[in-house]
Amino acid sequence: MLTPVNALSQLGQRTSEPPISWLMKEALQRPGLISLAAGFTDNPSLPVRETRAIVEGLLRGAQGQPPLQYGTTAGDAHLRQLTSARLAHLDDRPAQAAAYAPERLLITHGSQQLLYILSEILFDPGDLVLVEDPSYFVYLGIMQSHDIHGRGIRMEADGIDLAHLEATLNQLEQAGELPRLKALYLVSYHSNPAGITTNAAKKAAALKLLRRYEKVAGHPIYLIEDAAYRELRFAGEDTPSALSMDRRADRVVYTSTFSKPFATGVRVGFGLLPEPLLAAALRVKGNHDFGTANFLQQILTQALANGSYETQVAKLRRRYARKAMAMTQACAAHFPDAVQWANPTGGLYVWARLPAKVRSGLKSALFEAALRHKVLYVPGSLCYCDDTTRRKPNRELRLSYGNASLQEIEEGIARLGRALKKVL
Amino acid sequence: MLTPVNALSQLGQRTSEPPISWLMKEALQRPGLISLAAGFTDNPSLPVRETRAIVEGLLRGAQGQPPLQYGTTAGDAHLRQLTSARLAHLDDRPAQAAAYAPERLLITHGSQQLLYILSEILFDPGDLVLVEDPSYFVYLGIMQSHDIHGRGIRMEADGIDLAHLEATLNQLEQAGELPRLKALYLVSYHSNPAGITTNAAKKAAALKLLRRYEKVAGHPIYLIEDAAYRELRFAGEDTPSALSMDRRADRVVYTSTFSKPFATGVRVGFGLLPEPLLAAALRVKGNHDFGTANFLQQILTQALANGSYETQVAKLRRRYARKAMAMTQACAAHFPDAVQWANPTGGLYVWARLPAKVRSGLKSALFEAALRHKVLYVPGSLCYCDDTTRRKPNRELRLSYGNASLQEIEEGIARLGRALKKVL
Repeated sequence: MLTPVNALSQLGQRTSEPPISWLMKEALQRPGLISLAAGFTDNPSLPVRETRAIVEGLLRGAQGQPPLQYGTTAGDAHLRQLTSARLAHLDDRPAQAAAYAPERLLITHGSQQLLYILSEILFDPGDLVLVEDPSYFVYLGIMQSHDIHGRGIRMEADGIDLAHLEATLNQLEQAGELPRLKALYLVSYHSNPAGITTNAAKKAAALKLLRRYEKVAGHPIYLIEDAAYRELRFAGEDTPSALSMDRRADRVVYTSTFSKPFATGVRVGFGLLPEPLLAAALRVKGNHDFGTANFLQQILTQALANGSYETQVAKLRRRYARKAMAMTQACAAHFPDAVQWANPTGGLYVWARLPAKVRSGLKSALFEAALRHKVLYVPGSLCYCDDTTRRKPNRELRLSYGNASLQEIEEGIARLGRALKKVL
Repeated sequence: MLTPVNALSQLGQRTSEPPISWLMKEALQRPGLISLAAGFTDNPSLPVRETRAIVEGLLRGAQGQPPLQYGTTAGDAHLRQLTSARLAHLDDRPAQAAAYAPERLLITHGSQQLLYILSEILFDPGDLVLVEDPSYFVYLGIMQSHDIHGRGIRMEADGIDLAHLEATLNQLEQAGELPRLKALYLVSYHSNPAGITTNAAKKAAALKLLRRYEKVAGHPIYLIEDAAYRELRFAGEDTPSALSMDRRADRVVYTSTFSKPFATGVRVGFGLLPEPLLAAALRVKGNHDFGTANFLQQILTQALANGSYETQVAKLRRRYARKAMAMTQACAAHFPDAVQWANPTGGLYVWARLPAKVRSGLKSALFEAALRHKVLYVPGSLCYCDDTTRRKPNRELRLSYGNASLQEIEEGIARLGRALKKVL
């Protein structure tokens, strides 16, 4: 009666374990190991007192019932309105501008859920997305699961390499593959993993470029702007979002989150979507969970309305500025001269590059030496999509200062420095 | 430059708007309308004070940080352990029994998310699932979206009609369709919409029957037991779950939720899954959101640990018993004799049947009369899957006493009685 073949769908069989799970298990199993790998945020600065005060205010008598009841699929109307207004303000646009209309906004269980739903509604197996080289590895995991193919676009210090974007679009046109191309995915602020912010002119140019190829594609090619780290800027000026350049409000999908700038345990993300993506996303969201947990939404609504969200963002910026500086100073003190990195201006990561021919991957001598020295990093190769038109770079390291304490940052980088000196 | 064809995937194009959205919009747009349609729960009994006390206990100093930080993809270890132990206790099984191992348990954003993920990992477009006639309409929505085909199994007062299940399996075998059959989906406790509880002997027999057809199917055929309403029992004894009959712990998927018995705004559901479904579900869950909001999980953990969850369940049972009785008494007082219904023993719904040839659908005279009388119900036909081998029944009504007050229940049923008398 044994039935050897399993009943899994193609997606069920295809979806592989994310390499980061392995890294996290490794971290748990080795006592004394310092993890600079996880994307967790800073613990001591979490808004414990502020959240308690908000909940005390929310949960009083009969007025405390609605936050504990179901909400709507799109999300709380007040939260959507506050979010839209805040975004228009960040972009220095009038709150009534069409692109920022609260009706275009969908609240999700972290922005991750929105990226997932977007992948479901845009891509059939074999379809194409352009991603940054390197890009956010959980997004790459979604691509793998849904059999979405990727082409990596080279990056410069101020964002995407427009010449390479155009060359790639040309190649796809030549190869007759444009009808399968649905979107360009940019982590446009203090990117995970490389810490790069795409400047405004490049966003506008990318939008224009994509539009030029739509006629051959036969459908819109969307710009998905993942602004998850926008609020965590601690140097320089804010950059306008691509929403502000999307004149007919019909090509840009903007996704972001309140989780990282407020509290990651309170998962509330959001996105602004053009039609027909919005209608499709709402329907799929209804099937996922008919709406994000209302209690979490009410907490965020209060935090935005009473100013504690802004206070928390300001606090986090100072905090991460200090932690980023601790990390780069430690890198300068402990890393061999041949290792390169840029000072982050926001976000949670330092992206370091080894000299040519020295590898950083899971099976490299460096990774093994790092484990022996009890320090963990994310190998850069995990952040590159499968793109057969180029070799996957394998000499970079993502180092997170998000969760580690100042002392762990200093000690972790010192250990990594010793491992690097062994290998170089 | 107009590009008329949209870029949506097949799923994006296929997924239709749930009819319940239309019903909810209708309810919002008609002031004075009494909705007996929504699946919302009772407002006045929500655990406002209890949740506030739990949060006050959780969010204190440095120990308040972990609840506001990310958790793990599978969910909080303590919550999983408490949930498993509780379930084993309900089933009168030893806590160490393999089927109840906490390692088999996945915490999700409501049990809805688990049903969604299961659909992703089990079914390719065109695959088959057997569902109850009638079944949970949001599950039918997931099926529609993923192009999962359904066959409806007839129901009796004590659950699924085993003879019809066997006849359907035989038909599928004859037609060579068994390889596409992946599961039987049962809402086995106080079902939505019909209020039916499947008895233990029928669950065991169904499991045995499914196993008999696996050889021809070429793979396992799972029993998905959706126990969302199990805790809301207010008459009779509890029934053991199918988990307790799954000797090798390899064929039953058990899904349930803490949302309805505690607070729907605090979305925490869960499921116990056999391998290889568990591994696949965990990977897909990682891509959805890398774990359910930790803050909500910590609230439920505390509620289970300090007894306030049990107290809340006991309170809700008394409350819904009273509301159910108010509704059935009102039905007896106001409905024409030809209308039939059974007294619920749990859950949130009264399922009423009209005489032959009187229709209840969205375009029926009754539905229009009900709207004119300012009362809303869910037409029964929305609760039947698309199954071309039978006509879709269209003379039933789902009436919810979940959210309506006692006064609204009495008044809503009186109005519906007047509408019924107009039409009959």
